[in-house]
Amino acid sequence: MPTIGIFVNLQKDRYLDVTRQLVDELTHQQADFYLETSIAAALQIPEFGMEEEELYRNCQVLMALGGDGTILGVARRAAPIGIPIAGINLGRMGFLTEIEIGDLKKVVRQILAGRYEVEHRMMLAAKVTGPNRPEPLEIQCAMNDLMVTRHSVNRMLRVVLEANNGLLDRFSGDGVVIASPTGSTGYSLSAGGPIVDPLLPCMVVTPICAHTLHSRSMVLSRDEEIRIRAARPEEAMLLMVDGQESYAIFPGDEIAVARSPYEALFLRLQARDFYSLVRNKLWEWSQ
Amino acid sequence: MPTIGIFVNLQKDRYLDVTRQLVDELTHQQADFYLETSIAAALQIPEFGMEEEELYRNCQVLMALGGDGTILGVARRAAPIGIPIAGINLGRMGFLTEIEIGDLKKVVRQILAGRYEVEHRMMLAAKVTGPNRPEPLEIQCAMNDLMVTRHSVNRMLRVVLEANNGLLDRFSGDGVVIASPTGSTGYSLSAGGPIVDPLLPCMVVTPICAHTLHSRSMVLSRDEEIRIRAARPEEAMLLMVDGQESYAIFPGDEIAVARSPYEALFLRLQARDFYSLVRNKLWEWSQ
Amino acid sequence: MPTIGIFVNLQKDRYLDVTRQLVDELTHQQADFYLETSIAAALQIPEFGMEEEELYRNCQVLMALGGDGTILGVARRAAPIGIPIAGINLGRMGFLTEIEIGDLKKVVRQILAGRYEVEHRMMLAAKVTGPNRPEPLEIQCAMNDLMVTRHSVNRMLRVVLEANNGLLDRFSGDGVVIASPTGSTGYSLSAGGPIVDPLLPCMVVTPICAHTLHSRSMVLSRDEEIRIRAARPEEAMLLMVDGQESYAIFPGDEIAVARSPYEALFLRLQARDFYSLVRNKLWEWSQ
Amino acid sequence: MPTIGIFVNLQKDRYLDVTRQLVDELTHQQADFYLETSIAAALQIPEFGMEEEELYRNCQVLMALGGDGTILGVARRAAPIGIPIAGINLGRMGFLTEIEIGDLKKVVRQILAGRYEVEHRMMLAAKVTGPNRPEPLEIQCAMNDLMVTRHSVNRMLRVVLEANNGLLDRFSGDGVVIASPTGSTGYSLSAGGPIVDPLLPCMVVTPICAHTLHSRSMVLSRDEEIRIRAARPEEAMLLMVDGQESYAIFPGDEIAVARSPYEALFLRLQARDFYSLVRNKLWEWSQ
Repeated sequence: MPTIGIFVNLQKDRYLDVTRQLVDELTHQQADFYLETSIAAALQIPEFGMEEEELYRNCQVLMALGGDGTILGVARRAAPIGIPIAGINLGRMGFLTEIEIGDLKKVVRQILAGRYEVEHRMMLAAKVTGPNRPEPLEIQCAMNDLMVTRHSVNRMLRVVLEANNGLLDRFSGDGVVIASPTGSTGYSLSAGGPIVDPLLPCMVVTPICAHTLHSRSMVLSRDEEIRIRAARPEEAMLLMVDGQESYAIFPGDEIAVARSPYEALFLRLQARDFYSLVRNKLWEWSQ
Repeated sequence: MPTIGIFVNLQKDRYLDVTRQLVDELTHQQADFYLETSIAAALQIPEFGMEEEELYRNCQVLMALGGDGTILGVARRAAPIGIPIAGINLGRMGFLTEIEIGDLKKVVRQILAGRYEVEHRMMLAAKVTGPNRPEPLEIQCAMNDLMVTRHSVNRMLRVVLEANNGLLDRFSGDGVVIASPTGSTGYSLSAGGPIVDPLLPCMVVTPICAHTLHSRSMVLSRDEEIRIRAARPEEAMLLMVDGQESYAIFPGDEIAVARSPYEALFLRLQARDFYSLVRNKLWEWSQ
Repeated sequence: MPTIGIFVNLQKDRYLDVTRQLVDELTHQQADFYLETSIAAALQIPEFGMEEEELYRNCQVLMALGGDGTILGVARRAAPIGIPIAGINLGRMGFLTEIEIGDLKKVVRQILAGRYEVEHRMMLAAKVTGPNRPEPLEIQCAMNDLMVTRHSVNRMLRVVLEANNGLLDRFSGDGVVIASPTGSTGYSLSAGGPIVDPLLPCMVVTPICAHTLHSRSMVLSRDEEIRIRAARPEEAMLLMVDGQESYAIFPGDEIAVARSPYEALFLRLQARDFYSLVRNKLWEWSQ
Repeated sequence: MPTIGIFVNLQKDRYLDVTRQLVDELTHQQADFYLETSIAAALQIPEFGMEEEELYRNCQVLMALGGDGTILGVARRAAPIGIPIAGINLGRMGFLTEIEIGDLKKVVRQILAGRYEVEHRMMLAAKVTGPNRPEPLEIQCAMNDLMVTRHSVNRMLRVVLEANNGLLDRFSGDGVVIASPTGSTGYSLSAGGPIVDPLLPCMVVTPICAHTLHSRSMVLSRDEEIRIRAARPEEAMLLMVDGQESYAIFPGDEIAVARSPYEALFLRLQARDFYSLVRNKLWEWSQ
């Protein structure tokens, strides 16, 4: 039986009700499991606590209670280690959370028995180099997207994009978002990008509020390396990872975005229809 | 040495100047070649004439003089037989024409010597079935796109799209266009679809003027079969192939669109940068 | 008391239930009213029948039972005569239908007592001239929009638009739609146009699936005259009025679109919030 | 003869060549004129220097040398005092700069002789109130637009928009831009808004990267007051004026945007075709 590591988004399970339910079920089925130290303490089972770092190192399956945002963070950490994740949905319907609360009991049994498939999802990586960086900044894994925007409030950024064969596009605007197929339904969609089958081997490059009116969303092979820089060398920018982590980009820096060597692994416990998820989300968003 | 079949778009080579140049060069290099009967007659070399049908059957390489539109037509016919095409550009810059007139001499030598690569491009197929069709209508090959629109002038069509896993989308509008990766820079782009790497294994589904405002362009795996029908069973529609051939769709018909078993084969005589073509075309279009 | 003329969309009141209810109420309140001859016959009150033409000439208020489509047709006929219209909603929520069935009794009393306001809505007019027209074709009134599209199935139309000061825009695509402010929430919205306050003195010009990617929707003063012609003089086009009536546009024709000298008059029986209508419609459309 | 006040964008006239040319011409024509103290000093004519504040108070016509950005700043200051502005174009073609360098001589003569028209352009105003503001923050004049965006890097803002009649729209995204008709060709256009006749009495409200996919650009009457607030009361935002000045919006603040009581006054020295400017700009942007 795999050792289970449990992550909890406290904002979504404020009183730890669902976490306790999960813990009870795992105990009942005599599973090995651990939670973050603070959560274990709050549940008064400190012997099941482990530092975050340790959880990633010592568990064979991760269960994450929260919404898509929670899963994004766990996925970026779990991917380089190669541990699969099962997302338990505590919010509105999500693209990455697989399990509904009502199914906890059944699901725990399935996971412990190894009755699941593992879906591999492509991730993105970024490497930032520049005259003021003795060492490049490396982002190993982004699940949904990498976004590059102006750093200051001055309105327009002029961006140069290159790919394997040279110049890709050049435009003025608020910035550019490069999404994995999984991320096509995230910020990329708001910026005008298409909805992409999550298993298609590609990246989606979409200008954000381009003033260069002909600029369009582009779907590239995942084997491209996309280099991004400001046309004006004195311009600082901002790099955001999954909309959650931000990094300063110094004048003269170049950001190289490519497929990550790591993949996110998600437990699949049942057949899933991506397009039905999309329809439901679009519906939800239209309200 | 391969036997060369030559197709000419008479509107683009009105006085057959370029055709004559090509014929001279082929003669000079002692190649076997044929033209359509009428063109051979006009050039006063009737012995080099052949019926269109025969050209496809008896040649090993096709040379098509014209623009992208000319190539589309030849590609649909050549794909099932598996003959590669070399497009000679007589118009504005094109996505499918490989050869500029100034390079004719050099190019003929390359082709006769077999010094070229063959690029395989995915095509689409369609099968239309319905209560009033004893036999299904089969479209073997579409190079760029299949478009389904309202048949009459009454303004809005309600379309239902299904894919392998069931319902894909349902929307009201002018219709829907399904493009191959190659066709992503054609009509699909005008309808709001993304620019797609021509070698990506996918199809692009884009609603045309959707009144259902949340409908978005979708990039699907090329292994999907997309079924299209009118939500109102009494509604007739129109199916267009590459914007060149049109077919009536009767009330109650269903159109199944999938990857074609055939591929278009294009001669590549030099390295080519797709995104530089795109930039130049967008530039041209913006004028 | 005003004489009431009643128009019925038979597809929306198949068994004339609502019509009968209205007739009963009018009779009960001793109003003068007339219906189309065939409707009156079906209700077995032939003495209240009148030819369509006569209804427009002899009534002081029109009541139209149906949806927005029904109102569009009545509005085009009623505007030149200056009769106000009260739309009774038999379909889904509409932008032009004011009255819900449940309010019929109250509403009839209001109308007979003259307790209402009249809202004036700008309409469009078109004049088509050309070498093959001894007489220009004149469209006096369009309520929502005038749309010019390619006539045949060949894909792309090149359109030239001129306004008072000369060239406005020039683009390739499926056509162009010119909407009144009222029509901004109709087809114009699907083509990418903005939502416009129905009382703003303007016209909205929106390219349909422009291949010239920079083309944008334009909101012009209602005092502009917009002239539309095909860039290629041999090209035939199609002119559609409110998506309901279509006219052939011959090669060489020019279509001049301007504000109509007539206005549609709608009865307002209560305060109305346009943007709440919009939100509800967008919601409905997103389903 | 009017007293002329001269503003110079030093980044566009680095060596003051054009400024000197203008000063020479004004001297030659014996005009009264003043420049900012530092510019006058640099030109070694300190007796023609005046503090910025004084220039606005003591001149009857302002000449601004620079690009559209320069004019925006001068327009915001000049409008409440009611002085007309003549923009001299030192950059690429602009929407607000009227005069080309080659015409300086002629233009100075025209201005001194009073041979010009004054075009009145609507401006926007904003008033920010909230629990943590003893005094409201008042923005008297924005020439192009007011933009409200998220303050921090967390990705999505949920915005509530109300107008005179109550709720206008509610959506998630990067923010919202409210443009004057003049500003419709600025940032508003990048965000998907329409091009609007600069003299149309309206405001253009456009969501920025809305995740609520049905949200559309809206053209409202200039008599609306639009109230903007974050749906989550704890959310801070940022208010930008003409993309040049930024203000922090505290949690709980409400921003009321309306027509400014002041108008920008621009000298018109010749007939101008707005749509020809638009075409040229779109063309320029597409490069």
